[in-house]
Amino acid sequence: MKCFKYRKDTIIELKIDAHLWCLGSYAERYVPGGYFEDLSLEKKLEIFSRIDGLDGLVIFYPTVPLPSDPDKILKLLSNYNLKASVIEPEIWSDRKWRDGAFSTSDKKIREEAIKIMKEGMDLAKALEADSVLLWPAHDGFDYPFQTDYKDSWKYMVETVNQICSYDSSIKVALEAKSKDPRQKQYLSSTGKALAFINDVGCENLGCALDVGHALMAGESLAESLTLIDSHRKIFQIHLNDNYKDADPDMVLGTVNFWEILEFFYYLNKTDYKSWSTLDIISARDDRVKTLELAVKMTKLFKNLADKLSENDNKIEKNLKGYHFADNMDMITEILFK
Amino acid sequence: MKCFKYRKDTIIELKIDAHLWCLGSYAERYVPGGYFEDLSLEKKLEIFSRIDGLDGLVIFYPTVPLPSDPDKILKLLSNYNLKASVIEPEIWSDRKWRDGAFSTSDKKIREEAIKIMKEGMDLAKALEADSVLLWPAHDGFDYPFQTDYKDSWKYMVETVNQICSYDSSIKVALEAKSKDPRQKQYLSSTGKALAFINDVGCENLGCALDVGHALMAGESLAESLTLIDSHRKIFQIHLNDNYKDADPDMVLGTVNFWEILEFFYYLNKTDYKSWSTLDIISARDDRVKTLELAVKMTKLFKNLADKLSENDNKIEKNLKGYHFADNMDMITEILFK
Amino acid sequence: MKCFKYRKDTIIELKIDAHLWCLGSYAERYVPGGYFEDLSLEKKLEIFSRIDGLDGLVIFYPTVPLPSDPDKILKLLSNYNLKASVIEPEIWSDRKWRDGAFSTSDKKIREEAIKIMKEGMDLAKALEADSVLLWPAHDGFDYPFQTDYKDSWKYMVETVNQICSYDSSIKVALEAKSKDPRQKQYLSSTGKALAFINDVGCENLGCALDVGHALMAGESLAESLTLIDSHRKIFQIHLNDNYKDADPDMVLGTVNFWEILEFFYYLNKTDYKSWSTLDIISARDDRVKTLELAVKMTKLFKNLADKLSENDNKIEKNLKGYHFADNMDMITEILFK
Amino acid sequence: MKCFKYRKDTIIELKIDAHLWCLGSYAERYVPGGYFEDLSLEKKLEIFSRIDGLDGLVIFYPTVPLPSDPDKILKLLSNYNLKASVIEPEIWSDRKWRDGAFSTSDKKIREEAIKIMKEGMDLAKALEADSVLLWPAHDGFDYPFQTDYKDSWKYMVETVNQICSYDSSIKVALEAKSKDPRQKQYLSSTGKALAFINDVGCENLGCALDVGHALMAGESLAESLTLIDSHRKIFQIHLNDNYKDADPDMVLGTVNFWEILEFFYYLNKTDYKSWSTLDIISARDDRVKTLELAVKMTKLFKNLADKLSENDNKIEKNLKGYHFADNMDMITEILFK
Repeated sequence: MKCFKYRKDTIIELKIDAHLWCLGSYAERYVPGGYFEDLSLEKKLEIFSRIDGLDGLVIFYPTVPLPSDPDKILKLLSNYNLKASVIEPEIWSDRKWRDGAFSTSDKKIREEAIKIMKEGMDLAKALEADSVLLWPAHDGFDYPFQTDYKDSWKYMVETVNQICSYDSSIKVALEAKSKDPRQKQYLSSTGKALAFINDVGCENLGCALDVGHALMAGESLAESLTLIDSHRKIFQIHLNDNYKDADPDMVLGTVNFWEILEFFYYLNKTDYKSWSTLDIISARDDRVKTLELAVKMTKLFKNLADKLSENDNKIEKNLKGYHFADNMDMITEILFK
Repeated sequence: MKCFKYRKDTIIELKIDAHLWCLGSYAERYVPGGYFEDLSLEKKLEIFSRIDGLDGLVIFYPTVPLPSDPDKILKLLSNYNLKASVIEPEIWSDRKWRDGAFSTSDKKIREEAIKIMKEGMDLAKALEADSVLLWPAHDGFDYPFQTDYKDSWKYMVETVNQICSYDSSIKVALEAKSKDPRQKQYLSSTGKALAFINDVGCENLGCALDVGHALMAGESLAESLTLIDSHRKIFQIHLNDNYKDADPDMVLGTVNFWEILEFFYYLNKTDYKSWSTLDIISARDDRVKTLELAVKMTKLFKNLADKLSENDNKIEKNLKGYHFADNMDMITEILFK
Repeated sequence: MKCFKYRKDTIIELKIDAHLWCLGSYAERYVPGGYFEDLSLEKKLEIFSRIDGLDGLVIFYPTVPLPSDPDKILKLLSNYNLKASVIEPEIWSDRKWRDGAFSTSDKKIREEAIKIMKEGMDLAKALEADSVLLWPAHDGFDYPFQTDYKDSWKYMVETVNQICSYDSSIKVALEAKSKDPRQKQYLSSTGKALAFINDVGCENLGCALDVGHALMAGESLAESLTLIDSHRKIFQIHLNDNYKDADPDMVLGTVNFWEILEFFYYLNKTDYKSWSTLDIISARDDRVKTLELAVKMTKLFKNLADKLSENDNKIEKNLKGYHFADNMDMITEILFK
Repeated sequence: MKCFKYRKDTIIELKIDAHLWCLGSYAERYVPGGYFEDLSLEKKLEIFSRIDGLDGLVIFYPTVPLPSDPDKILKLLSNYNLKASVIEPEIWSDRKWRDGAFSTSDKKIREEAIKIMKEGMDLAKALEADSVLLWPAHDGFDYPFQTDYKDSWKYMVETVNQICSYDSSIKVALEAKSKDPRQKQYLSSTGKALAFINDVGCENLGCALDVGHALMAGESLAESLTLIDSHRKIFQIHLNDNYKDADPDMVLGTVNFWEILEFFYYLNKTDYKSWSTLDIISARDDRVKTLELAVKMTKLFKNLADKLSENDNKIEKNLKGYHFADNMDMITEILFK
């Protein structure tokens, strides 16, 4: 039986980062030309640098349009007061991944994915980034009778084991998602990610909890966070919102309120020290204002949650006694008095 | 009170058409380069022409890559033994529609949409196509507090009224969809489409029933068909499949079986004489084989439904008596003996 | 084409009522004995009377455990400072409705439903209640090949026409619901209810908008309200909450926040003068505290919405310009400053 | 890293059992009196005994209306040619479980659950039943801010560890379900169940795969089966159907076809030797005919799957090459020629 140890409750510090896609042109199926003209790298970095509270940049690998040399990246970022937060090896936009990257029966493709992941881990080391994302975007299926479930899981376990074993000093953050781009993806939920991590058996493999993916999978954000954290596996947090039926990467807190508030309340019960990544798209509205709103909403929910954490003893007592009406009565007083 | 008259039951003829997108390169959000190299127009038409049972081509407007002149279109199609089935004015891929085309508060944009629709109606007349599609793809919203619901519906009613009034001899087929590309689209369901048609008040406005959209909206296909048909409003049928939570335009009948079978069984109770349009995407598998499979599956379900229609008296009797177990017992005997 | 007239925006008054089920024992499938001992009628009325802001009682018909005589009902309620708000003919708990009450092929059953509805309308007149609910709970189906969709809709139109024609001075409020107790119910959404109302063709037939049902159907609450109201058909409002995938009748505003806030904001744009009905269940927590919380949450959302209505000009301007980020930025300032 | 070994493919034997609830009166929220009069035990057993292919009876514990003495149970069952298949300790219908049975903060309640489970294990031993079900029905939550997620998981791990440790010779089958009766249940999916089993760390703890629950959770049935089986943890299989949005325990194969067919195809790749349990409700139609239909449909899908297994080499080859169109083309030929 696993033994669970919990830490003293505390109010954690928030470190907010984002990726350049937040200011992208956003091409999609029905609008392949995108909703915007692309901005220059300099323009994007300049916008990032003047948004108060946005301190980190997610580095995609390959690093284009950033330089490829780590030192040059760091120098460029320092010009804009930005830190290299985490690495995201981009293993999804090439059509060669169409049958999967980590689970495919095609060994050559798996080896290409392994190679990119290893290079991403090297980059993380060079940039002192916090962790490296592993998102098996195309590893799944669309139809019944399309893939071999036995082999797929086995290959995926082996591939990820090889990746994590390459450098045990680098944290690899596994991102679960139930669908999109596949109709069904193998690593569909937090529970399945934890089962997979058990199978892989590497200490440096943990979870990237994408709030929007968890909502889409019908999960409770706070429960998933707590479950991951109780296994000491919370490596990354991605912030966005949706209606629980798709993953449009909307601004955090514009659809779901209580579940996100509860998420930040429980986040204060962890000792999470890494980044909170804005993972949003502004398809139609002003991109800069939307990014600013995303930072603002993140801070707002953190602040509201901190108010609750100050009343932690009372809230915990109600939780342990299952006194929901008492709890909600008190919580609304705290938030809206 | 509306008076419903029903027709004598019969077995209808199937006429299958498709659009060129079925053989497209399929660019999407994560794979903007698409999964395939584009094929030439001639290659696509050649593939269409040699698939037995695929007899019509949906004409997008603007007509590129087809010629713009109606006579030239007809001549080209006749070379491939294809008919111009229906017109689909393409009012979705330009970013100018981002806030809606038919419902937007921007009068100039609405007028552009009206203009394209009218030109599409002219083309339908010239080509003797069966009807013109009207899909309000971007007419909806993503966020609470993003659009004015009062004005949106009002503008949409007025705009569509203007379109339909332009030429009452041309059937305009309204396509409902609950989401994608917007998180919430105004004409979200068959019920709402019928309510909208009532508000517009034009005889030549009816429904394009997209089977995938109806599944995604949680509708019973056969019930929606029957409801539309009892108002004499079934103008187009689009065929594809999904898991009821998204619209990936999968091959008909590869996920849902009984609901699609029932749909074709009830289709035999209408006097629908127009086209059954394959509206599929093959993102990853062989495009030609996938299109061939779509034709095959459509015929298969029609054939199975015809076997049931031959036993219509018994099935109807069970339906009227709510004897589901008896019905299913008999139906499986018919299908799998 | 329908002509839409809108009223001057204003802040409406809230009148809150509830039904006795809110304090019920709550038997369900897995716990047929219920989660509580039943309370006496007097105890329930006493609890209602001392909750500030809860002013009306929904009267079920048959009226047990209330007296059957209208004068006696009014006298009893006046002892507790309660008004008879609306009538809910109870046409769901008897197994005889298993194949439907309004749509069934069994004429005798339909006539029983009509009789109860007419008696409910008589009672509404005697009690000067605002409207009579019509919820076709069992009118739907569970399986494909179980019911005849043509006849069902036709019978339902005829039956409801007969009911409404009985007394055109009494408002009949149709409640849509997508599922539960059937897997699929005919009147599944706001759009379908409006299409049905068109078919029935009676002035005194309108909508009961159950907020939980609309959420479960994937509707925008504010949009559905606005659509109903623009047809002058908003007769009843039922308040509860859920995760959009079932109808557990949870306390309003404990799951969904922005969509409910927007609902009350748009409610201020109508001239709705009738009741807002608490339609909740407290299966596990203290029943009285839960009911008190439901009243509190309803007032909270109304108050927050009123603050927005005071800034209506700015919000409307953003809506018309599709400036969501600006709007949300301002709205959060108003709510959380 | 976990090492996965697979067995030689084969066609397995089906053993079908059911519980007495299949012939129950079915009380639910809206129809607390149920849809039927209850049948006598003798009548139910007599019906079971004359349905060809239905060979086992699920034994609830406490055993009422069956005798409590194991020998008397076996004697009674042998009169009807039935075997005691599996044990289901009934830990859901008493209101005392309202805050959870295995995860609750109330130690006394957890001990009551442990006691019943242990007695159920004793009974399984005495009856030589195949396994004992553990369904944490009430272990979950309805609202945000209602339960303590840290403690709940910890208590649940400890409680189930104690249960399994009581007798390691008895298989304990954990049943996952995402919702109902709670809005969110802790053991919500196959993935989470496997993660939980890892935490508990007992060899005799495995999975009961309820096909309807897996569908409702958006899982692929065949994938979940394969994942469980590759960990050697497939202890029970429960058969029913639904629309993926609720758990009405409908007859298997009346809604979903391909996913169920694929499930039985992959079941032939395991060496599962235990029971396939009909877990259905007939709320409205004839109970006996419905149960007969459930047996028939189960055999039908098994037979169709066996036809595919005879072509296993070709299907596997298509799976490994991701040739879906080829596969489906061949499969429909096999099934419908």
